[in-house]
Amino acid sequence: MADSRITRVTLKDISLKTGYTINTVSRALKNKDDISTQTRELIQKTAKDMGYINNSLASSLRSGSTKTIAIILGDISNPHFAIMVKEIEKSIRKHGYVSLVINTEENSELEEQAINSALGKQVDGIIICPVQKSVDNIEYLKRTGIPFVLLGRRFERTDFDYVICDDTNGGYLATKHLLEKEHKRILILKGPDYISSAKDRLDGYVKAMNEHHMEIDNELIQEVGVVSGDSRQVIKRVLDEGIQFTAVVAFNDMMAWEVIYTLNRRGYKVPDNIAVVGFDNIQSRFFFPFPLTTIANSKSKMSKRAVDILLKKINDPKSHTIFNEIIQTQLIVRDST
Amino acid sequence: MADSRITRVTLKDISLKTGYTINTVSRALKNKDDISTQTRELIQKTAKDMGYINNSLASSLRSGSTKTIAIILGDISNPHFAIMVKEIEKSIRKHGYVSLVINTEENSELEEQAINSALGKQVDGIIICPVQKSVDNIEYLKRTGIPFVLLGRRFERTDFDYVICDDTNGGYLATKHLLEKEHKRILILKGPDYISSAKDRLDGYVKAMNEHHMEIDNELIQEVGVVSGDSRQVIKRVLDEGIQFTAVVAFNDMMAWEVIYTLNRRGYKVPDNIAVVGFDNIQSRFFFPFPLTTIANSKSKMSKRAVDILLKKINDPKSHTIFNEIIQTQLIVRDST
Repeated sequence: MADSRITRVTLKDISLKTGYTINTVSRALKNKDDISTQTRELIQKTAKDMGYINNSLASSLRSGSTKTIAIILGDISNPHFAIMVKEIEKSIRKHGYVSLVINTEENSELEEQAINSALGKQVDGIIICPVQKSVDNIEYLKRTGIPFVLLGRRFERTDFDYVICDDTNGGYLATKHLLEKEHKRILILKGPDYISSAKDRLDGYVKAMNEHHMEIDNELIQEVGVVSGDSRQVIKRVLDEGIQFTAVVAFNDMMAWEVIYTLNRRGYKVPDNIAVVGFDNIQSRFFFPFPLTTIANSKSKMSKRAVDILLKKINDPKSHTIFNEIIQTQLIVRDST
Repeated sequence: MADSRITRVTLKDISLKTGYTINTVSRALKNKDDISTQTRELIQKTAKDMGYINNSLASSLRSGSTKTIAIILGDISNPHFAIMVKEIEKSIRKHGYVSLVINTEENSELEEQAINSALGKQVDGIIICPVQKSVDNIEYLKRTGIPFVLLGRRFERTDFDYVICDDTNGGYLATKHLLEKEHKRILILKGPDYISSAKDRLDGYVKAMNEHHMEIDNELIQEVGVVSGDSRQVIKRVLDEGIQFTAVVAFNDMMAWEVIYTLNRRGYKVPDNIAVVGFDNIQSRFFFPFPLTTIANSKSKMSKRAVDILLKKINDPKSHTIFNEIIQTQLIVRDST
């Protein structure tokens, strides 16, 4: 038993055990149909019983394909990202690929490490939700020629493939919904400006406010970091500073719940005293006791399109087509407004 | 630009561009200190500008290590698993490893595929939360000699390394807490029996009930699948059948929230009419508006121990030590009881 941990079972071992030639064993393990079903099954069972590992790495090195895709993103413990990873993993598995998952923690150096790590493993392609503090890492990725697709965020440069949701319309729909409910002081918790989805959602907020001839009050535009716990601090500060508001547009659902949690602790009821709108519609996968009014952004559709585009690029490396895709967003009205 | 997508930049290209020999370029890219800092920096910058990829795969094939670990689990979109993956990824990154993540969807065939896929990629080790419908896949894994650690679930066989939390004590603490609050009809939503953590938590329930001289009523022991939406159906059925209960012990937090969601829809208030206890303490990472009474199971400690053990096995393949580790659980009392 101890030996098997360090000495791998070889084709020769299986050949000795079964009495078939190494060539027959090799062809049986590759499921070639010039070997009879009975013999194939016997050899495959013996190989499994002996703990033989079918090594695809050496052959991938010859073929130039590792059948691996890297998924690089901010924080997999955020259910929004976790659902996307699950969807991507499910889609690529059908095509025989597996996924390397690497978190950037929204940090550019970790993003650079993640990219180098993925490239070093010779992944066939990369799906990345970029940190966006700078475009350098993505420009390097472009120079390497490795197929990649940006997911959820885009740069001004349009020569990168991307799949995002319609963030501007999402921010617009969320704000319009609150305006139609007669709210006038609408606080927006926006993500940092360098993140495209944060900027786009704010644009939607401004558009809706303008359409309703509402003045934009800068103290109602508050920036939150994309780390758990940040919105709690911001809401506390806003309340302490006595800034008046009757509604909140949160950057995402996790923040919206955090806002409701904090408001409750301070004695405010949602939606009776303050209305809250989220973004991501995470509850489409989970049953939470307090359903949010939120913006649905088709996580499944976004993930599938990103995979489709990436596989197109992998399979047709000479193609010059650039895909810039924007998936529709939709308002979901539930208990928080 | 188009060419760079299919023709990789080579050491020779960098040599031609910089005027240094291929050997100097190679040593500079490996950060060897017999090359002057200035030259190294120039060569590394040029390589990056040209889109050169440092290929660790070929060298890993020579060294026999791919610096990759597979994480095989049921469903990464469950925040409990997602938090574990994040913790594992963070720990192994410090040792220069990256993680392949593969979902089994709690299906044995997908688990077999996942294992074959990981082995085919020559991962250095595997952390797996096994499906447990049968032990076959894990026995095969053992025969291959690849280092692996079971996380969160164990088999009767103790010759597999594992890290679990004290599920029996968790189930016991949850039930005892409800009994001390004078509940007599305590419904337990238990996972399938073949899952060790489900069986252990039920054992804890039975132990607490016995200690309090309560009769175990079989209609209060209800099995739920580990898929989102299942507990909703079970609670609806239990209510429709008129089974009386004043408290619920749920298999995990996601189910507890789903139970509260369903009870609310049926007009029951938690905890006024019915008390609910969860398991996992997911809210330690998130701020949800409705904090659960739950069992904390040190996800971070469990993940770190699993990584430590796996690295020990990888670095000392001849070691015969078997690690069977049980991490403490703890009752957290919040708003749902």
